[in-house]
Order: sequence, then C-alpha cells, then structure tokens
Amino acid sequence: MLKYLIIITLAAFGNFAMAAGRPSLIITQSEAEEIRSVLGHYLLIDNAFNRLQKDVEKALVEEIELPMPGEAGGYAHEKHKQNYSDMKSAGILFAITKDEKYARFIKKMLDGYAKMYPTLPAHPLAHDQKPGKLFHQMLNEAVWLLNTAQAYDCVYDWLTAEDRSLYETNIFIPMAKWFTRDHPQEFNRIHNHGMWVAASVGMIGYVMNNRDYIEMALNGTEKDGNGGFLKQVEMLFSPDGYYMEGAYYVRYAMRPLFFFAEAIERNQPEVKIYEFKDQIIKKAYYAGVNCTFPNGIFVPINDASRTMDIKAPGVVYGNSIVYDNYGEDINLLGIAKVQGEVPLNKAGLKLARDFADKESVPDFTWKSLELTDGYDGKQGGLGILRTGEGQDQTMLLMKYGVHGLGHGHFDKLHFIFYDQQKEVIPDYGFARWINIEPKFGGRYLPENKSYAMQTIAHNTVVVDEQCQNNFNRKAADQVHGDRHFFDISDIHCQVMSARADNHYDGVEMQRTMFLIRDENLEWPVVVDLYRLKSQTEHQYDYPIHFRGQLMATNFEYASNSVIQNPMGEKAGYQHLWYEAVGKVKDCPSITWLHGHRYYSVIASNQNAEVLFGRTGANDPNFNLVSEPMFLIREKAKDHLFAAVIEPHGYFNEASESTRQARPRFQQVEVIGFNDDASVVRLVGDKGLDWIIIVNNREASGITHTVTFKGREYEWTGNYSVQKSYK
Amino acid sequence: MLKYLIIITLAAFGNFAMAAGRPSLIITQSEAEEIRSVLGHYLLIDNAFNRLQKDVEKALVEEIELPMPGEAGGYAHEKHKQNYSDMKSAGILFAITKDEKYARFIKKMLDGYAKMYPTLPAHPLAHDQKPGKLFHQMLNEAVWLLNTAQAYDCVYDWLTAEDRSLYETNIFIPMAKWFTRDHPQEFNRIHNHGMWVAASVGMIGYVMNNRDYIEMALNGTEKDGNGGFLKQVEMLFSPDGYYMEGAYYVRYAMRPLFFFAEAIERNQPEVKIYEFKDQIIKKAYYAGVNCTFPNGIFVPINDASRTMDIKAPGVVYGNSIVYDNYGEDINLLGIAKVQGEVPLNKAGLKLARDFADKESVPDFTWKSLELTDGYDGKQGGLGILRTGEGQDQTMLLMKYGVHGLGHGHFDKLHFIFYDQQKEVIPDYGFARWINIEPKFGGRYLPENKSYAMQTIAHNTVVVDEQCQNNFNRKAADQVHGDRHFFDISDIHCQVMSARADNHYDGVEMQRTMFLIRDENLEWPVVVDLYRLKSQTEHQYDYPIHFRGQLMATNFEYASNSVIQNPMGEKAGYQHLWYEAVGKVKDCPSITWLHGHRYYSVIASNQNAEVLFGRTGANDPNFNLVSEPMFLIREKAKDHLFAAVIEPHGYFNEASESTRQARPRFQQVEVIGFNDDASVVRLVGDKGLDWIIIVNNREASGITHTVTFKGREYEWTGNYSVQKSYK
Repeated sequence: MLKYLIIITLAAFGNFAMAAGRPSLIITQSEAEEIRSVLGHYLLIDNAFNRLQKDVEKALVEEIELPMPGEAGGYAHEKHKQNYSDMKSAGILFAITKDEKYARFIKKMLDGYAKMYPTLPAHPLAHDQKPGKLFHQMLNEAVWLLNTAQAYDCVYDWLTAEDRSLYETNIFIPMAKWFTRDHPQEFNRIHNHGMWVAASVGMIGYVMNNRDYIEMALNGTEKDGNGGFLKQVEMLFSPDGYYMEGAYYVRYAMRPLFFFAEAIERNQPEVKIYEFKDQIIKKAYYAGVNCTFPNGIFVPINDASRTMDIKAPGVVYGNSIVYDNYGEDINLLGIAKVQGEVPLNKAGLKLARDFADKESVPDFTWKSLELTDGYDGKQGGLGILRTGEGQDQTMLLMKYGVHGLGHGHFDKLHFIFYDQQKEVIPDYGFARWINIEPKFGGRYLPENKSYAMQTIAHNTVVVDEQCQNNFNRKAADQVHGDRHFFDISDIHCQVMSARADNHYDGVEMQRTMFLIRDENLEWPVVVDLYRLKSQTEHQYDYPIHFRGQLMATNFEYASNSVIQNPMGEKAGYQHLWYEAVGKVKDCPSITWLHGHRYYSVIASNQNAEVLFGRTGANDPNFNLVSEPMFLIREKAKDHLFAAVIEPHGYFNEASESTRQARPRFQQVEVIGFNDDASVVRLVGDKGLDWIIIVNNREASGITHTVTFKGREYEWTGNYSVQKSYK
Repeated sequence: MLKYLIIITLAAFGNFAMAAGRPSLIITQSEAEEIRSVLGHYLLIDNAFNRLQKDVEKALVEEIELPMPGEAGGYAHEKHKQNYSDMKSAGILFAITKDEKYARFIKKMLDGYAKMYPTLPAHPLAHDQKPGKLFHQMLNEAVWLLNTAQAYDCVYDWLTAEDRSLYETNIFIPMAKWFTRDHPQEFNRIHNHGMWVAASVGMIGYVMNNRDYIEMALNGTEKDGNGGFLKQVEMLFSPDGYYMEGAYYVRYAMRPLFFFAEAIERNQPEVKIYEFKDQIIKKAYYAGVNCTFPNGIFVPINDASRTMDIKAPGVVYGNSIVYDNYGEDINLLGIAKVQGEVPLNKAGLKLARDFADKESVPDFTWKSLELTDGYDGKQGGLGILRTGEGQDQTMLLMKYGVHGLGHGHFDKLHFIFYDQQKEVIPDYGFARWINIEPKFGGRYLPENKSYAMQTIAHNTVVVDEQCQNNFNRKAADQVHGDRHFFDISDIHCQVMSARADNHYDGVEMQRTMFLIRDENLEWPVVVDLYRLKSQTEHQYDYPIHFRGQLMATNFEYASNSVIQNPMGEKAGYQHLWYEAVGKVKDCPSITWLHGHRYYSVIASNQNAEVLFGRTGANDPNFNLVSEPMFLIREKAKDHLFAAVIEPHGYFNEASESTRQARPRFQQVEVIGFNDDASVVRLVGDKGLDWIIIVNNREASGITHTVTFKGREYEWTGNYSVQKSYK
C-alpha cells in the first residue's frame, strides 16, 4: 500500500499559478485563443461551444436568482446547481470569446453569493449526510465549489482586487474552512464524496495560489497522506482501475478525478499525476467505459440508475484527457461519436481534430474482460463476457467483488444478461427517482434498502429467504467474492467461475457461467452452474428477473389470480407479489418474449417449485417499478442448479411474423457434482446433446478425471464442453 | 344506398385479359421491362427489388415444403403463408428478369399444391370461423389465392397448357367453388373477410379469363349486387373513407381493396373503379393513414396491435396507387420515406421517380380532422385533434362512431392522448399475442373479451361497473355515437364534442374535449368535460389508463399493499388488481412520469373516491400486459366530470435533471351544467384563471346565455374559453 504514498510538500512546488498565468485549471489563455481560431472547423468543438453558448445566453436574459437553500431536488437546490453550471460555462466562454458580458454575469452571481453565504447556517435537512450550507449535503457544496472555482479561474484577472478579496473572504475561505476544519472527516473519507470535497478545495487552492489548500487536497487535512485525493484514488480503484462502488458511481467519481487531475497536471506537472499508481487514471477510465452495455449505458450494478451513460460529463471530459495523455485509441473516437462533443481545451481539440480527420469512425466495441476488485486487486472482481460486434453484442456479466460501501448491493454471484440492445435479465438498479422532489425529495427511497439492495432483487441464489450477510453492510464490506477462473481463450465458448463462501453462514457457493456461440443455434446461449454446499439443509431460491411477457411453461401452475399476497415477509420478499406457483415433475422450461426474441430458462430441477412474482407489494407509495420475476425453489444441503438460458426464434408484431416460440433445449441433467467437478448434460431437439464439465478444485490446466454414475469423465483445464449432434 | 349500385354484366366487358396480355393483375410485361431498365437508378425501386430477390433467393435454395395443414400460427400455417409470399415474389421477379429459375420455382410449388389440395378436407380447427382447407379459416385461404393468382398470372404464358389445366382443375377451380358455392355467405359478407374472398376469386378470374368468377367477385355470388366486392366497399367505408372496423383492420382491408381495385382497373377500365362512390378508394386510403400517430403507428382502437404501422403491405401498395391515380401529394412521398419501398409497377415507378427528384422529402404531417362513420356518414365518427409538427405532434383522439362488428370495443366516447412520440393515455389494444403458438395458437385470447373489449379497459366513463350495451355486440352494432360539434378553426384551441345516449340504459352521455396550446404553458393541455344525465342515481367511474410511474397525488390514499384483490367481479373489473383507494377532499390531482415529462390529471370532483389499479388479476396464464390505471368514482344522477390533463416539466434520468414536477393547474371548479351549457373554471399558479363554456344544445353559431350561481355567462357559438392571468 505504501508503494504509492506520495507526500507533496511545500518544497515541491513553486509559484505555479502565477507562473503559468490564469486561467490554469482546465484551459489556458493560449488554448482559448486557439479554440476561438478554429470555431466552425471541428464538429465536436462546435457542438460543445454551441451548447455552452445556448445555455449561457438563456441564463443571461433571465434574472439572477439565489434562493434560500431548500430540500434536495427542490427549486432552490436545482437553482444553485444551475447557477454553478452557468458560471462555469460563462467562464469558459469568456476565456474563448473575451466578451465581457460573460465575466459580468459571473461577477454579478458571485456578488450575490458573497452577500448570502456568510448568512447561512449549516443546512438543516442534511439527514444522515454531512451538511453543506447552500445544499443539504456537503457533496453538492463541493460540486458547487469545484465548478465555481473554474469560473473564478477564468475571470480572476478581469476582476478587481476588491472583488477577489470579497469573494475569497465571504465565500471561498469560509467554504474551504467548512470542508477542511469543520468536517475534515468527510474531506479525508475514502469515498467519492471525499474526492469531490478534496478536489474542490484543491481547485480553489490553485486559483487562489493557496498552498495550504493544495497540500490538504492532495494529502489530507493532516497533510500526512492518510486522507485527501491521492489516498482516495489509491484506495478506491483496483489495480485494474475498477471502481469499488460500481459503474454508475464511477462516472460521477470521474468528475473530480479528471478535473482535479488535469488541474494538478497543469499546475504541478512534477506530481506526474497521470503516471500515479501505474497510470491508474487511465485504467480507471477504461475500466469505467468497459462497464457499459453496447449501447453505452453503464451496467446498473449496486445503487445505479438504468439510463446513465457515457454522455455523463465526467466521461466526456475524461475521454479527451485519456486520448491526449495515453494514446490515440480509435475506441475513444467511437465514444466521442456518441458523446457528440469534447471539452474546450487542448485535449478536446486534439480529439476533435483526429475525429474530423477520419473518413468514418466505427462504433466502439469492447471485448470480454475481467476486472479485479479491491485496492490490492485480490478481492474478487467483475467478469464480463461478450460476443458479437458493436451494438449487436450479447453480454453476460457476473459480479463477485467487494461489497462497495454504502451504495453496495448484497448480490454476490449476481448476473446480468444483455441481448438485442437491451437488458433481458436485468438488474433492478436503485429505488430512487433521482431529483424528483415529490418522490422523497429525489433521494434514495426506503425501498432502496428494503428491496433494491436485497439479495432477492438480484439474479443470484437466496438462502433461506435471507439477505447475504444479513443485510449488514459493515460485515459485507469485510468480505468479498473470489475469482475461480476466467477463460476467454475460445471465443465461441467463454467461461467465468467464482465463489462466495462468506455471504451466508455455513453455505459455500460457486457459480460458473458459460457464454456459448454454437453454429447449430441461432443465438448465443448461457449455461449456468450454480453450486451450493452446506452441512445442513436450506431453502435455495434461484431467481430470474426478466423483462417482457411470460409466454409458456412446460408445467402446470396455480395462479393466485383472485387474492394476491407478498411472496414473503422480509429480505425483499415482502415487495414481491406472489403470482403463481408450479410444482415441476421434469426439467422446468420457462419462456418469455422480449423485443423480437423469445428467451427460455431450462433447468435441471426435477422436483422443485417454481414461484412467479412481480415487484410492487408493500409499496404504499408506488415507489417501485412493476417488473416480473420467477424463482426455482429447492430444499437441500448440497445442490447444483444447472440451467440453460436460450434466446430463440423471432417475433415481430408489426409484421405479425414469428417462428420458433419453443426452445431447442429440453433437458438439463445433473450427472454429478462434488468438490472435484460438476458434470451436466444438456439435451435438445435435432440431436442436440452437450456434456458440460467444470473443475471445482483450484483453477489449473492439468488433466482431471471424475467418476459419476459409474462413468469416468476426463478433461484438461478448468472446463470442458463436449458437443454432439445426432 | 342505391346510388352506388353498379351491376357489371357480361356485356360490359370484352375479352380483356387476352387483349391486354399477361401478366395483367398488378404489372404488365412492358412495365416489367421498364423496371428492369431502371434498376440501380431509384432507391425505392431498388429497395423493393432487392428485398424480393433476397427473400426468393433464400427460398430457392431451401427445399420446397408443403406440410399437412395445422393450427393457426403453427409451423404448417406459417409455411403455407411463406409459400404464397415466395410464389408471388418469384412471379414478379420472373416478369422483370425473365430468369426461368423463378418460373420453375412457382411451377414446382404449384405441382405440389395440385397434388395435395384435392386430398384435403375442410380444416378441422376452424373454431367459430368458416374453414379453409389449407388453413383453419377461409380468410387465410383467400389470402393464399389472392397472392398465388398474382404468381400464376406472371408465369401463365410460360407454363404449358397441361400445367395450367392441372392447376386450375386441382387447385383454383375447387378453391373458387369452396368460396362461391360451398360458403357463399362468407363470400358475400360485408366484412374484410368477405373482401378477401371476393377479391381472391376475382383475381384468379382475371387470370383464367373466367367471367363467372369476375362477375361474382364484383357483384356477389348471385350477381345481383347484394354481395361481393363493390357492395363491400360501399358498405364498409363511410363517405369520408373511414373503415368501420377501425385503423388496425383497415391496413389489412387495404390489401384486397387495392390489389383487386388495381386488377379491375387494368382489366376492366370501363368499371372506373377509382371513381367508384365519389373516389371512395382515395378517401379510404387517406382516412386510413390519417388514423395514425405521428410515428406512423395505426391508432389501436378496437381489436388492434399497438405496433402496426404504415409499413404494412397494403399501405405500401396503396400509397403508390393513390399517388398515381389521385395526384402527387407530398405527404405520400413522406409516407414512402418511412416505408422505404414501392410496388414494382408503373405506380411505384412514378412515385420512386418523383421521390428521387426531390432534394429532400419532409416528414408527413397530418392535420386535425373528423371522420364520419357509417356507410351513410351519419353514425357518429372519430375526432382527431393535433398540434405541433411532424414527429413532435401532440394528438388527442375521441371515438364516437359505430361499434365496428366483431372486432369492435365497447368504448364510445373513449379517448387516446399521444405526446412525446408515445401513447401517454393509451388504448389497451387487443388481448392477443398474434401468431404465437403457445399463446392460444396466436388467436384472440379469452381476455380479449373479458378485458380488452370491455368499457373499463378504455378511457371513458363506466356506469355501475357495467359494460356499454351490456357487452351485447348485436345491440352495440345497432347504435352509434353522435357528433355534437368539431371545431378546429382556432389552431390554439381545438374542440370536439360528441354524445352517446344509447349505450347505457337511462343514461345520456356527452363528452367535450379541448386541446389547448397556451403561450403561458409549456405544452398543450387537454380540458375534458364529460357530462352524464340520468333520472336515477348511478355509480360513474371516470378511468384514466396511463403509461409510466405514479409520482404524486394531492390526497392521502390507503394502499392494499399486503393483500390485493380484483377491483370488481365482472365487466373487466375482475382483471384489475385493486391497488389503493383515496377519498379526496379537494380537487384531486394525480401526477405520473412518462418519458421526459410529467402528466397530471386535475379534476373537479371534491368528494369522490380515487381507485388505483393494474391489469393482471384473474389472468391465470399471464395473458395480459401489466399496466397501471386509476379511476375517479362518483355516485350521482346528473354529473359533470371536468378535468385538465396537463403535461408539465422535464425529467432526464441520464442527466439527472428535472424541473416542475408539480402541475400548474390546481383547481377545477364546475360552476354549473345543465342541458343548455356547462361552465367550468380552471385555476392555477401565477394567476392562471380560465373559464370554459360549452354549449350543450344543438350545435349552432348563435349567441347563448346561461345563468349559474346568479351570474350570467354569454358566448357565441359552441364553446368559449376566457383566459386571464393575474
């Protein structure tokens, strides 16, 4: 851990900001002049400039308004957000155009804040967050400062000394004191909130040439390296760059990460921030954008919205920074094509020029990859298997890393299946209507804890209707999943396997997922082997949340169609309406329709119950989204859930055409499983007959044998798929 | 009615098909040669040609298969559909390319049918339809013949006399006999099925030069004008061209309509089919494509899918025919832009040339219009109000015409509200998973009758939890809604008003809907005045089915969140889960979120109950789609439901930005209503204060007065909107 500890001392920097001239945070005067000279030449620059100008012109004609602080998502909250955004945009426009109307706008706004800010107490509606004064939580106040510092940077030289003195005395110094002296815990916290707070103080520090602020920003309020930006970056990202809170929050963490990193690089190049921790900033970016579906939406694991995508501001900024600093990757141009703009500085200009030089820019295509988790990279990870190209990729994701702090979900060995440009077996994401005031002020809803975070809200086995780690976040943060193996050497048969042995007392779990592209099948299929091991009998629920409409099952079920109750009483089950239950006699096959394809789950369970549910019970305020699911319920000590997830056929309502509404696979037989291996046979129509073998011992490339039902199976490596077609 | 009766006698036509040469149904040899000569020049022609070629080339390499007839939507059913489609396409390709492989393909296929057809009995799975032999219902058999006739037409001259004799003896003659002699009732039926059957016999009649067939096709099996194509066209379309079954079925009826009309025009121009009934074919086309949302999807009134659009084959064919015969409307080029292709004949070529000549073709934009219903145009109608341009139009539709036969829904005075390129207050459409074999063979589901057709499934008042006309289709077909007035003279305030007095015993209903574009409001709003009149007290339920997520109400409600029962026992209520109920004390305001906007209903009811529901109860096979609704329940004799439907604000989850989650309107006060007039006051924030007056007497342009609560209101015409902003 000490490897990356860098204490930046006063001696390490000179009179930087003065030397470089202002602005110095994200754009310099010479960059601004160059951008002015190329306006009208590069689409991505023009898009960015035009958008800023449109936003700011709108703000210029409206009256400046600084409402008294209010609740999250309310009018005042949104207005102060708008204000910092407009100030920042006006600052950049001023740098580029030199039109003083922009500077006057910022001055007028800051005059207002200089009058208001000293009168404000700690915000009374902080709930369980550290308060700001303008905003209910310090986080938003730090975002305000990080943006306003950029505006201040752009007009610093234009303002009079009296103006500057007024703003610094009445706003920036008290705000920095609030962050560093009154609430140092938040400042030093290893968390994205901490990054924002530290970065914001560092940004204003560079503008004000305040070395104290800068040192604290980099190394913590005690300047000892135990807090602050560098420590946060070191601890929050795995060596592969995976962000511990997950993909939705990384796009947010990217903003302080890239804005402050770029400010450091511009003002203190001797820090070599872009080399820090083996180029962790580059890795963080690539890990982040790899955690997206082919449509550019971040995978909604942990607390996450289902629509956040690579057009988020931190990603737009980071894309050009990474392109400029780490090499001209064509995939980054593909991202820029989706984003439609670049930051207005030298990095953005470089990307925009290269973009314009290309005859055509292909869609970005990510490959299968595993991202290790934990600051040391030894705390499990995230496995992503992909097949196909561009927007038509099919993607299978399994989560087996750390819990991920307060926004973590209790969902180890959970998977998401993406196909046809949509989530087919989805993650619920968070229970939150973000920033919508009538919905609990736009904050996380109670149902986020009572449902969205619970194990049953995910596609992973639930033991005894309990949540993993008994919903104890501290306990969950102490443990993690473990990788078993991840093998993408055969592009037609990609496999990932992982364990979670510390999430249910006395139950060990191992999940192995295959993504198989077979020439005899129309679409890629998933084979899932979920093994549970325990000394005592448990109830094991294997849930599949799906999107679309149930079409068919191969078993009878009893529908609760005139009285409906919740499926259970706790651990999220209380939020599922219990719609139907079937007792299966043979391998259950469940088919639903989504988009233009059918999807079937065919499972090995010969005597299980299959329960059908839908979110919405115990939801007296209509906070949850109504979505269907089913689960396969077994009682056992040791058990192997073996299942095929098969996309099949075609349906087009508009053309009223369809084919193959029934799956090809019909039987999933568990031949045997133990601590050595699992052997499963899949049988379907037209002679489809596959034997699937997984090594359950330590991953290795040796030749194994196992005997089940009197027959010896031999294979080399971690898995084997033996196919025949009669 | 006699006005349009045209009996085509033998004397009226000569040796037409021989004279013109074959093919003669949809393309001639000289047209085919011209198309061959322009291949590669016109996008829309090339698209059509390439698609045909791709389809047929695929068919040519596969083995020809004529499975024994099976159930609807099953393999055999789909295969025989594929066969006629491939034959027809091959015929056109043969005409254009003269490549004999296409002709040989058709011959081989017809050889197979000539062997199989004589062996087939009436199809055993006809249920309540007239059977075919290849298909479970005669309808599909007629579609087969209508298409196969075109293929036969194209290869007729290439075939030997022996071939022709074989096919006619073994297939076409027995099939025509089955239609005209064994089941003349279906042939003569005033129904789209009848059109198909008659047209198919007419088409093969032209190819075979069989005057008997042609006379029957035009004038009915008795050749007396009481059945057959002309009578069907006369009776099924209103003088405005509105098709009595609704918009989903018109796209289907357009196929026999245009294919046979064009065959008549080519073979018997003396019939002047395109002038028939004051150019009813033109009107039918325009009425059909006007009954679409701005995205080109047909409004799903009556039995209808929610995705059928103007790319349907009959519309593609009709578009060029209408363009060629009735004038070069730029909107038809806009439709062709969406359709992406044209028929391969002279009409298609003309459109494709004009399309290519344009620098750019604008999106089609339809205007507000009223379509009268009934063959005489005096049986109510369909009102469509639109505001805005192209894809961004807001649209309000009210249905007050005839029932529409077996596919009619019991939904007089029902409305649909479309905004943001989607249905916001939708129609459920049909309960059917079309052609999906595991879902009841792809046929209409039981829930189509028990839910989708019922009044409560629509956005119109339900009296005493009963269906209109007690769900008696015959009774419903005897009555209709009545137009009151339809006024679009002020583009900022468009109004339609209609009555339905024969749908609930002893209850008269009048609905007046405004679509108002006001400069003080961000989006167009709807004002709805639904008046009920009865001598006895009834329960009146005012339902709003909505898409999206409930966000806020201004009243408390009790949620049935741990036990859920159906909302009622019959008339569709048994399919609604009863989620919550609130007792309102003041004007209820209910807000939901859909897409990027909020929508609120603010109603006048000061002491009503508001019930929240969701489809899915009593649905033991998951046949229904789960969708939310609420209803406002009043008990009264005479009552006026007055409500504003207000779109407001903005939400973007991806950018986490939002504004104005609460509506502007807050109060809806019924000042008074009686048989003379209704007067309502709407009050909102920032001084919003509107008085809405509707004339309830016979429509007229005179000046009216009415006195309510001691105040006299005076206005001229059918309505008045008096706005003030304090």
